[in-house]
Amino acid sequence: MRESELIERLEALLAPAAPRVVRGIGDDAAIVRGGGYAVTSVDAMVEGVHFPAGQLTPEEIGRRALAGALSDLAAMGALPGEAYLVLGLPPGADPDLALGVVAGARRLAAEHGTAIAGGDVTRAPALTVSFTVVGWESDPGSLVGRDGARPGDAVAVTGTLGGSGAGLALIEGRAGGEGLAPSVAETLRARYARPEPRLAAGRELAASGASAMIDLSDGLATDARHLARRSAVRIELSLEALPLADGVREVARELGVDAPTFAATAGEDYELCVCVAPEAAKLLQSPPNENAALSWIGSVQEGPPAVIFAGADGPLEGFEHSF
Amino acid sequence: MRESELIERLEALLAPAAPRVVRGIGDDAAIVRGGGYAVTSVDAMVEGVHFPAGQLTPEEIGRRALAGALSDLAAMGALPGEAYLVLGLPPGADPDLALGVVAGARRLAAEHGTAIAGGDVTRAPALTVSFTVVGWESDPGSLVGRDGARPGDAVAVTGTLGGSGAGLALIEGRAGGEGLAPSVAETLRARYARPEPRLAAGRELAASGASAMIDLSDGLATDARHLARRSAVRIELSLEALPLADGVREVARELGVDAPTFAATAGEDYELCVCVAPEAAKLLQSPPNENAALSWIGSVQEGPPAVIFAGADGPLEGFEHSF
Repeated sequence: MRESELIERLEALLAPAAPRVVRGIGDDAAIVRGGGYAVTSVDAMVEGVHFPAGQLTPEEIGRRALAGALSDLAAMGALPGEAYLVLGLPPGADPDLALGVVAGARRLAAEHGTAIAGGDVTRAPALTVSFTVVGWESDPGSLVGRDGARPGDAVAVTGTLGGSGAGLALIEGRAGGEGLAPSVAETLRARYARPEPRLAAGRELAASGASAMIDLSDGLATDARHLARRSAVRIELSLEALPLADGVREVARELGVDAPTFAATAGEDYELCVCVAPEAAKLLQSPPNENAALSWIGSVQEGPPAVIFAGADGPLEGFEHSF
Repeated sequence: MRESELIERLEALLAPAAPRVVRGIGDDAAIVRGGGYAVTSVDAMVEGVHFPAGQLTPEEIGRRALAGALSDLAAMGALPGEAYLVLGLPPGADPDLALGVVAGARRLAAEHGTAIAGGDVTRAPALTVSFTVVGWESDPGSLVGRDGARPGDAVAVTGTLGGSGAGLALIEGRAGGEGLAPSVAETLRARYARPEPRLAAGRELAASGASAMIDLSDGLATDARHLARRSAVRIELSLEALPLADGVREVARELGVDAPTFAATAGEDYELCVCVAPEAAKLLQSPPNENAALSWIGSVQEGPPAVIFAGADGPLEGFEHSF
């Protein structure tokens, strides 16, 4: 299929835009009515790097890439407005792959009131889905960075951990999931294939006085270290307190690894890790969002930037690429 | 090199941010004080697709990718505010490659008062440099789309054409450039390796009443067709009137192709093609910008969307990928 024909079909799929989008797909640039402060994040997912080839549907690939980008806005306590797509297609790719990726992203975007307002399609050696997401906020002081954690803060995570990593192990066949009920195995797979950006929870946590927040893409061990480094604090966490997703213990046993350690390092759960001052923590004992209940997993201390897991033999390492 | 170490070095390189950047590189998302309307474009360049491997310096690759994205803002008559980078690095890539790409982009960004306010670094099978660029405009009506060309408009291009394509032919060794003075050959190479986004010219043309505008990335034949299609007009252009870059005739002769046809189809000159009503055209007889003087190359007519080149044997096809 020619580039121009594919682009026309993609444009048709993306045509209905939000009222604030003055000019969307099809021109040199999009024009969007902004408001106050722009909150912007970019996130790329590459087949063979961020997801295995041949295991996810095109819709899941598109949805997942956008979810990863939106998760960064969730971690700021921002809500998304627009998304911009760069789609890299391998030579000879089926046009249905491109259309499916865009359809999957579009569905998640619609669920969160987000307009896909622009994009670029290009050839690439591997399927690449990259999103720039933009949210709008009138008061930048209401947004939560990584650098605000203070000694005495309590540390919590939303939802459950390890589910995405366990799902990937099942998808890749590294674990068979024999001891698991089919519905549990399917839920684990979905945790990997269809992560939910915690936008509502992030917004509520920001409004409740969160001092620092990050989304868990590389795993708690790595991501909490970003909080510790940016805030110049020591973060002490308890492996035992981590909320494991159903089925993670069974999959970890099959993999021959400690389940809480697996949950702290496997990454891609896209939950939020949040630091809150003690007085705010009291207010948050009731869960801010039923799908993303908080679990209290540790505290912020004075000290050189580091993350210490009580119950671990040594420092834990999350998922990290090398170059 | 570990991802975290490379990211720290890249962050250090990008640290000085513009005053409007409330929160830049290093958090989940950037926070930028906006203003009115956001003008946003995304553009990706992949090694082996958009530029040949091993021929450009890392600085040129970074600069060129950002130039391609900024050129889209130029074609709207917008000025850039921020840029966001997705950098895909092949396994085992030298960290100096990443640092060079970022340094090259950063230099061009600085020349245009643009802050690189965020980014994502990932592994990828081929070097990939993708930029999202954002400009700010209080009056969206002052921006120029592709859809405003009207019968009777005159059509012009900035600068010269074919230089980038000729430069690429020299870079790839498809032409030797024997008849060329070394300075001419070097200028052609630079037209490919270091294109200039026509931001000042685009701004001036928008202020002068341009009715439609596009940047020439895929070549005039293809890009003028976008104008024709979006504006629902027929565009008649003269091959003879095209302003050829110095040395293009010689390189085209070596390649055995017609020089004006080559200039209309080789692409990547990143000049602007603009349509202006006759009364505005009179005002523009004096060049708006000495580095991007206008050449009048045709007119807009009523008729089904098409681009006709007087002097050509048939329809011309610009550079276009297939999937």
